[in-house]
Amino acid sequence: MAGIRDVARLAHVSTSTVSLVLNNNGHVSDKTRKKVETAMQELNYIPNELARNLYHSKTNIVGLILPDIAHPFFGLFAKYVEIELHKEGYKTMLCSTVHEENGEKEYIDMLNRQMMDGIIMGSHSLDIDEYNGIVRPIVSLDRYINETIPIVMSDHEKGGTLAAEELLRCGCRKVLQIMGNRNVNTPAHLHHYAFEKKLLEAGVSVCTEEMPWNRWSFEEFYAFVKKIYTAYPDIDAVYGADLIAVAYLKEAGARGRRIPEDLKIIAYDGTDVTRMGAVTITSVYQDVQQLAKEAVKLLVEKINGIENQNDRRILDVCLKKGETT
Amino acid sequence: MAGIRDVARLAHVSTSTVSLVLNNNGHVSDKTRKKVETAMQELNYIPNELARNLYHSKTNIVGLILPDIAHPFFGLFAKYVEIELHKEGYKTMLCSTVHEENGEKEYIDMLNRQMMDGIIMGSHSLDIDEYNGIVRPIVSLDRYINETIPIVMSDHEKGGTLAAEELLRCGCRKVLQIMGNRNVNTPAHLHHYAFEKKLLEAGVSVCTEEMPWNRWSFEEFYAFVKKIYTAYPDIDAVYGADLIAVAYLKEAGARGRRIPEDLKIIAYDGTDVTRMGAVTITSVYQDVQQLAKEAVKLLVEKINGIENQNDRRILDVCLKKGETT
Repeated sequence: MAGIRDVARLAHVSTSTVSLVLNNNGHVSDKTRKKVETAMQELNYIPNELARNLYHSKTNIVGLILPDIAHPFFGLFAKYVEIELHKEGYKTMLCSTVHEENGEKEYIDMLNRQMMDGIIMGSHSLDIDEYNGIVRPIVSLDRYINETIPIVMSDHEKGGTLAAEELLRCGCRKVLQIMGNRNVNTPAHLHHYAFEKKLLEAGVSVCTEEMPWNRWSFEEFYAFVKKIYTAYPDIDAVYGADLIAVAYLKEAGARGRRIPEDLKIIAYDGTDVTRMGAVTITSVYQDVQQLAKEAVKLLVEKINGIENQNDRRILDVCLKKGETT
Repeated sequence: MAGIRDVARLAHVSTSTVSLVLNNNGHVSDKTRKKVETAMQELNYIPNELARNLYHSKTNIVGLILPDIAHPFFGLFAKYVEIELHKEGYKTMLCSTVHEENGEKEYIDMLNRQMMDGIIMGSHSLDIDEYNGIVRPIVSLDRYINETIPIVMSDHEKGGTLAAEELLRCGCRKVLQIMGNRNVNTPAHLHHYAFEKKLLEAGVSVCTEEMPWNRWSFEEFYAFVKKIYTAYPDIDAVYGADLIAVAYLKEAGARGRRIPEDLKIIAYDGTDVTRMGAVTITSVYQDVQQLAKEAVKLLVEKINGIENQNDRRILDVCLKKGETT
């Protein structure tokens, strides 16, 4: 059944404008009023949605759970999620879990208490069991939780393979990959596994360093790189998330390594930070805007009662050639 | 927005009867239920648990309005605001105005309709008049709106003066400053005025470029820098916001200018992006975490009925010497 948002979308006006028309409020131009009324007829909209929603406790609020809003990837994801949710008539309630252990739990409670209509989960630390039996709408970014919760993610296997192929073209023989903590259950690790597999098959040796859990700031990444740098004097390539690549490029440059002659670097995510420096970093690019659009689309479907269990939206990635390979 | 009491008055029933209807409790006659529902439609009363919290007239939700959550300064501000609000028991509802012209208006409406307890406003584009008569809690970051709305800001005059003094120490004679659009009424421009004043007093010539309105992404900043670069062949220093400084450093380097020998660069804000590159940019540092703490503190005071009209929290800034001066 058509809702006020459908009318607004069709008439290309805001939902509040539709409300004004519904309430015969004078502050609407005849032209706009006509557009809205035409849309209502076209959609066979019965202007008593407010009454119909009476018992549905709809808040038009969606919770967005992320590790750290100031992180380039998650900040960009949050930006586009908020824009897409706004288009659908929803407000975005933000929760960054790095500094709030119980933030995730609180949001699940609010969801169950119908204080919000749905959750987009870009960060997951709770025991998976806590999600069993939750019937309210949740969509996950890059996190497998259970088969009732759809996932939106990039094609990480392709991403890791693209990075490996690029380093093989460059003739690299000893590669260091720096990855997130493997205790976090995320398909995002897949690109590292695919990367390693591809290189090992080609007889390239691969060393792996694992970041401590829950590190997100550039300072933390840079401190980590400084700490491990001397342990790998003879590597000819480094592969890791954007901020790791940026930190390694900075440290290697400071130590006089020539990039890309002595050392190749490939970043994973391809956010702005890979393009800000004097040297543009070759990166595997995730379409963050599209990830946000798909996540919102799946969540709104769920909120509107459309069944999308086991749904997985896997988005394509590409290699953006920079000056570090 | 119509509250439960308005509905009760119009339907000639008690507020508790309205609650019974809202909670779909059976002990209400169809006749009474119809009266209540009609009154709700007439008043455009949108019932949900949040609206029902009006009963206790508190939602524990604070609206945060920013131009662009993916911008380094505003992303960091949002991060700390959310952390501080969480400590105080409030949830953060995010609105980025770059892509939502009516976002600010919507939030003001929600605030007036008591759908949120307060607003922290880091972006302001509405006509100032729209704020007159608003008695609900609002705190502004860097924006003067009216005397009832407290402001949190850095000591921008000191910031601009520190930058000018640094360039004078370096013996600069012709400086380019790139600033935000002056149509935006913000004390943040003060650092440019103080910067210019100090340099002109010392006989240094200052050229000023103004960014188009509402530009926030690195691509936009970099495109702008490329566009104006050749117009200033003989400057010996550049001063602007972090992303402008980063973009100028990138472009100048690509064109073979030696930094800092041929060209000095100072950034304003001092977020991570000024430290990510091979060359750390000298910057005027704003304490974003403290700005967030003060904004939340002032807002919570206002929510709790503590009078803080005309209140201004002006935080100290410092110069962080990098490798670009």
